[in-house]
Amino acid sequence: MALSKAPYKGTRDFFPEQMRLRNYIFSKMAEVSELFAYEPYDGPMIEELDLYRAKSGEELINDQVYNFVDRGDREVAIRPEMTPTVARMVAQIHREVAKPLRWYAIPNLMRYEKPQKGRLREFWQYNGDIFGAPEGLGELECLQLAVGILKSFGANEKHFEILINDRKMVDTIFTEVLKLDPEAAAALYKIVDRSKKVPAEKTKEDAKKILISDEKTEFFTNYLALTNVADLSNLIVKYNSVSIAEMGIQDNPLYKLSLRIQEAGLSPYIKYDPTIVRGLDYYTGLVFEIFDKHPDNRRAIAGGGAFANLLAIFGEQPLPGIGFGMGEVPLTDFLKAHGLLPDTTKQHIDILIAYENVAQEKSALDIAQSMRNQKIKVEVYLGESKPKKVFSYTDKKQPHFVLLLGDEVQLKNLKTKETHKMALADVDNMINVIKGSR
Amino acid sequence: MALSKAPYKGTRDFFPEQMRLRNYIFSKMAEVSELFAYEPYDGPMIEELDLYRAKSGEELINDQVYNFVDRGDREVAIRPEMTPTVARMVAQIHREVAKPLRWYAIPNLMRYEKPQKGRLREFWQYNGDIFGAPEGLGELECLQLAVGILKSFGANEKHFEILINDRKMVDTIFTEVLKLDPEAAAALYKIVDRSKKVPAEKTKEDAKKILISDEKTEFFTNYLALTNVADLSNLIVKYNSVSIAEMGIQDNPLYKLSLRIQEAGLSPYIKYDPTIVRGLDYYTGLVFEIFDKHPDNRRAIAGGGAFANLLAIFGEQPLPGIGFGMGEVPLTDFLKAHGLLPDTTKQHIDILIAYENVAQEKSALDIAQSMRNQKIKVEVYLGESKPKKVFSYTDKKQPHFVLLLGDEVQLKNLKTKETHKMALADVDNMINVIKGSR
Repeated sequence: MALSKAPYKGTRDFFPEQMRLRNYIFSKMAEVSELFAYEPYDGPMIEELDLYRAKSGEELINDQVYNFVDRGDREVAIRPEMTPTVARMVAQIHREVAKPLRWYAIPNLMRYEKPQKGRLREFWQYNGDIFGAPEGLGELECLQLAVGILKSFGANEKHFEILINDRKMVDTIFTEVLKLDPEAAAALYKIVDRSKKVPAEKTKEDAKKILISDEKTEFFTNYLALTNVADLSNLIVKYNSVSIAEMGIQDNPLYKLSLRIQEAGLSPYIKYDPTIVRGLDYYTGLVFEIFDKHPDNRRAIAGGGAFANLLAIFGEQPLPGIGFGMGEVPLTDFLKAHGLLPDTTKQHIDILIAYENVAQEKSALDIAQSMRNQKIKVEVYLGESKPKKVFSYTDKKQPHFVLLLGDEVQLKNLKTKETHKMALADVDNMINVIKGSR
Repeated sequence: MALSKAPYKGTRDFFPEQMRLRNYIFSKMAEVSELFAYEPYDGPMIEELDLYRAKSGEELINDQVYNFVDRGDREVAIRPEMTPTVARMVAQIHREVAKPLRWYAIPNLMRYEKPQKGRLREFWQYNGDIFGAPEGLGELECLQLAVGILKSFGANEKHFEILINDRKMVDTIFTEVLKLDPEAAAALYKIVDRSKKVPAEKTKEDAKKILISDEKTEFFTNYLALTNVADLSNLIVKYNSVSIAEMGIQDNPLYKLSLRIQEAGLSPYIKYDPTIVRGLDYYTGLVFEIFDKHPDNRRAIAGGGAFANLLAIFGEQPLPGIGFGMGEVPLTDFLKAHGLLPDTTKQHIDILIAYENVAQEKSALDIAQSMRNQKIKVEVYLGESKPKKVFSYTDKKQPHFVLLLGDEVQLKNLKTKETHKMALADVDNMINVIKGSR
């Protein structure tokens, strides 16, 4: 029986058209990162399973990780995310290097998912992180970087929005305002975390079961609906007799960050959203998600936040970090939804060189070599061929120029339809014509 | 107990210095490939195990492949090589597309190896393939491409050599000259394949056990020592009464290819070597390996060849291909041995912007943004800071320029030590100074 030609479930074959698109997306991500002085890094595609256990707990591992036992009886896993790897790497060197560290990577990751729109088993994810930055400024830069990457694709505030929140702020509200014990607070976190995916009525009902009182439930409902962090104080004052100053709400970094966001001109992109908490993950301060505003594609393109203590699992001193991940699958859907993808169907070839007679083969190869030395992309039509056959081929491949070696030597610009008669030896002139037309 | 900070056995962490080096190497590979009109592609990091079984047989799988059973009871493997994937992909589309197909990829692969010099468990490998080319011309282009890539790193015929052979030629000699049956021929193949790794005397002894006669053994020993395909005829004539023409030796494509190699100016790089057979792999015509000539690093950097029938396992019509793989680990060792690696220890930063007073933060951010819009790589020194501290930081990071916002605005070129006094608003002028110094 013949083998299947399909790729493994939830993974993709990148034919040249798709690969050129992927290269375009990755090169923009890398370019903007470098403009912000972020440095590239990468780690292994496999890590010991304990690394993910320590960071995320047993649940995520059982659910989503491709893990197996190697021939040396080590429990290993294909990386489902990059953060544990970057933490492990930073833990090795953070004591010796100048800080802050600004790093980015675009690794391939695997998760055991049910394949669906915007979600695959193998995907690439941009990761940008800054470690050891002064509070507030690292957060701001991370948001600038995310906006910078999206703007480099031609996206703007009409296409996406960044919803931000602060985990410390949520803790203060749960503990100081709603007076919840840790268990109840954890239960309410989960309700907040899924509130975007369920009807508001359902969220209210679930919250009521934890908050009991109608008054608390109403406060909670109003709180979740806030869109501006400045309105939070008023809401708390209205509900609570304790003064804002006493609760330390105004010392929350989100207030200062909001001012910096204005200062940096990022306000059009960024909105406060108390429903963003990013699960029970390792974040300890700022959390954010970037959403597509397109009505048909209301999905998160990216997410991230600040973490105080990722190095603790390695027995290292705390080093604060802020980072975000941007998956290439939801990003591509986003760019497609807004018509921001370039056309990558055609290969870019500067010139096709063809010859009518085998005696001209050496000349064709020599000219090709001279042109490649000048960074011209040359395809040699392999084997002697009549012009008719060559032109049927150029119709498909659409090179910019074609050079025909026959009784005459003709250089044709297939875009302008111009034809130049050339001497075989006049390669410099051919090169000038090609470069001049760029 | 604290977690290990080391990467999984046989894999590497790419810190920025190493990652810049990897990016440099990959970008050269991609650039040269595109100059030869090769198109980029990629496939999944995981394939169904049957794909490797069908191509390589059970032995290689048991030995070297990272395989496991997924949660859906599929036997899968992390790709140990790219050829089965590219064959699977070409099998999907070859009937609809213009030929030849010229493709390249630089995937990460994993093999269960004992880590040692030049060999790791996870590594990247350049793969370049051409499918559906006229015989001889695809082979030549593949060799040109390999030479082109190595030359792009500054390597030349003093640094490397390409040893070539032809599997059909070997078959003719084993069958027509040595009159071996298929079993004996296969045994002799294995002896040839490991002849570079054992003393010549041992090879001769082993061959004698198969060839029995002293005369055949002597022919075989002389044959293995050939360095020029033109000498092969004389050797056969000397040994054998059957005429060369009768055996079809002179019709072997290696003769014609040798002429084309001369024609294309590749002779200085390429040598005939009958010991190159590339195992019992799927090659059916040309086979070649590229060796480092450095006495301390006599290793293969790359290898490849022609294959007539890779699509057969998918039940598709034969489509001839020629391709080669070049591992980033032996290539890096090669470039290092010859002093051809660039210095990637330092990050390239055009300018560091620092401010003495928090009131200048907004100006610093604004200037940074304007410069990034002009493709200038800007690091903002986060937080207000005295010049002394800033200069201790620039000593470490070595940006090209530093912009100090204090009582005055100073733009310093740290390479020339020139200082320009600037007005805060004169960002255009700053940009001109930076761009002018490139």
